[in-house]
Amino acid sequence: MLKPELPRVPAQGGAPPAAHAPGGSPSAGEALAGYLHARAGEFLRGLRLHGESGADTAGAAEAARALRTASRRISGTLHTFRPMLDPVWADGLRAELTWLATTLAQEHACVSRLNRLVAALTRLSGAAGASGGAGSAAGGGGKAEARGPLGMGAARAGALLERQLTLGRTRSHSAALQALGSARFHAVADAVALLASERPPAPAFPPPPADAVTEAVRRRLLDAAAGLPLARAGRPYNADALVHGLTASAEEAQDAPWHRVRSLLRLHRYALEVTGPEPDPVLAGAGRLLDRHRDASEAATTAAVAARTPRIAPATAYVLGVLHADQRHEVEAARFAFQEIWQTAAGAPTGGGR
Amino acid sequence: MLKPELPRVPAQGGAPPAAHAPGGSPSAGEALAGYLHARAGEFLRGLRLHGESGADTAGAAEAARALRTASRRISGTLHTFRPMLDPVWADGLRAELTWLATTLAQEHACVSRLNRLVAALTRLSGAAGASGGAGSAAGGGGKAEARGPLGMGAARAGALLERQLTLGRTRSHSAALQALGSARFHAVADAVALLASERPPAPAFPPPPADAVTEAVRRRLLDAAAGLPLARAGRPYNADALVHGLTASAEEAQDAPWHRVRSLLRLHRYALEVTGPEPDPVLAGAGRLLDRHRDASEAATTAAVAARTPRIAPATAYVLGVLHADQRHEVEAARFAFQEIWQTAAGAPTGGGR
Repeated sequence: MLKPELPRVPAQGGAPPAAHAPGGSPSAGEALAGYLHARAGEFLRGLRLHGESGADTAGAAEAARALRTASRRISGTLHTFRPMLDPVWADGLRAELTWLATTLAQEHACVSRLNRLVAALTRLSGAAGASGGAGSAAGGGGKAEARGPLGMGAARAGALLERQLTLGRTRSHSAALQALGSARFHAVADAVALLASERPPAPAFPPPPADAVTEAVRRRLLDAAAGLPLARAGRPYNADALVHGLTASAEEAQDAPWHRVRSLLRLHRYALEVTGPEPDPVLAGAGRLLDRHRDASEAATTAAVAARTPRIAPATAYVLGVLHADQRHEVEAARFAFQEIWQTAAGAPTGGGR
Repeated sequence: MLKPELPRVPAQGGAPPAAHAPGGSPSAGEALAGYLHARAGEFLRGLRLHGESGADTAGAAEAARALRTASRRISGTLHTFRPMLDPVWADGLRAELTWLATTLAQEHACVSRLNRLVAALTRLSGAAGASGGAGSAAGGGGKAEARGPLGMGAARAGALLERQLTLGRTRSHSAALQALGSARFHAVADAVALLASERPPAPAFPPPPADAVTEAVRRRLLDAAAGLPLARAGRPYNADALVHGLTASAEEAQDAPWHRVRSLLRLHRYALEVTGPEPDPVLAGAGRLLDRHRDASEAATTAAVAARTPRIAPATAYVLGVLHADQRHEVEAARFAFQEIWQTAAGAPTGGGR
């Protein structure tokens, strides 16, 4: 089993915890409170930006990004450091922040998924040099059309994906706006505003030392990664990602453990942010690879779903099949690259960059 | 540039060639005549087996295989050792043997392509444990059907491929039977029968030394392999094989240099057979990988062609698209494995096994 020497999250200060003080040892509690304070400040800046953005699309997107990022960091931190906080308060705020971050993430996900699929279509059509942006779907398709008998299928598949993902984007945008105007959101914003000025509520019982808390998230990450089929992923062209290529549910089940490691990597990263400011480049790289894994996995699903649209032409369906398989290969490629970087982390004495 | 130390084909005997004697030095000529003699004997045994097989399908297939194999070896040898033979005679017989081998190979190619595609469909449907034989297309599809919404597409794609390749097989079988009953074939058989009893006709001019002849085929192989994009093939998941996945002609152009190296590996192998009996395991492995490359390339084309059948259901077309991409992925995997074995050959002092 692989046991990478991940950087241990340093517990700042080693004095025994004062009961009822949030955050174990005083200085560990300080660090936690300081981190939540800073993220809450970012949340409030995002909120202000949202209020000012009005019809400015770029401003609104930046506001959503700031709110989403801060929400995710706060909720992850509440999760990891739960034993050092009032658990009822932490669980409640975490659930609301998760709802908010998920709602705000949908629009961005639709845009980047369309970009990914259009870029893949352009690549598959051999139209090198064409821009891969979402706006170029029709243009890329037009070039493909001139290049081969399947060009029409590529153009239609591009148009179909653009239609479906633009619809998804519009719906997500409305849902986000609705969420940001809701009483539920205002309650979350109030709770976060409190966090920007006051210390987080302490637990009723003496909390464990901070290093036990941070060690727990590291342990969960290592265990989850050790459960991945890394040896198999390290053999290139194992064709694993497409082995159930015609059974969507089987693909989902196959990807789930990788998505879980991705989430744990993020939690671990946030925990490092709380206690030490330097990001770990190896872990950051591993995280980006599992982001790519997730993006390719979702793009593959989108292609498969689009192929189930009634009354599409066979050529369109054919291209969507090629696209699905192409994105599943990207899934496999991301797993291969992840295991390589993970083995590096295992070989390095202190986890690579630290 | 990669310069593998391929085993040099030993030129048996180093005495200066006697003018007009076939085969350069007497012993090199002996070896060539002996090799052609033995292959001609195999050809005649195949012919006898064909005459005896009647309605026995297995016997007919074995006869076709023997005739095909002997034809290919004789024609390859006539090609390589042309400077040591009467060139007009060698070119004439070689053209006829190439026609025969190509005609006899079609039926077998249809069968193995169907097996490959059905096995891939079975794998993609997640129906592990199902037999991958040609006869199981309907059964595999049935299992897939129970497994997901695309099962019907998989079953239909399997049935479509089985129909088209069975038709191709039947046509190839008739063409082979017709060829074996033709005057053209009897003329070839007479020429080969002569080769089984007499020495091959000598050239009008003094032939070059045998080692110059065999060195030429080795040099052509090394040059062709050095022209392959091996460094790129060595980076797994480069997505090269599918980069023009929607443009059939681009894929053909991309595969051609690899097919050419495959042919040259075969010519080199036959030249080794003439002058030294021990096969080289590294070269044999490299040849098998390029066979796999060729098979996957042709299977991918078959899936793309099947997708152009009029009035197929979108789900069928979708599955054929997945299948096409899957086989192109196999093409890429074969290239990756080939460059690995080729680098090994380059590293070893005498070409690995010899």
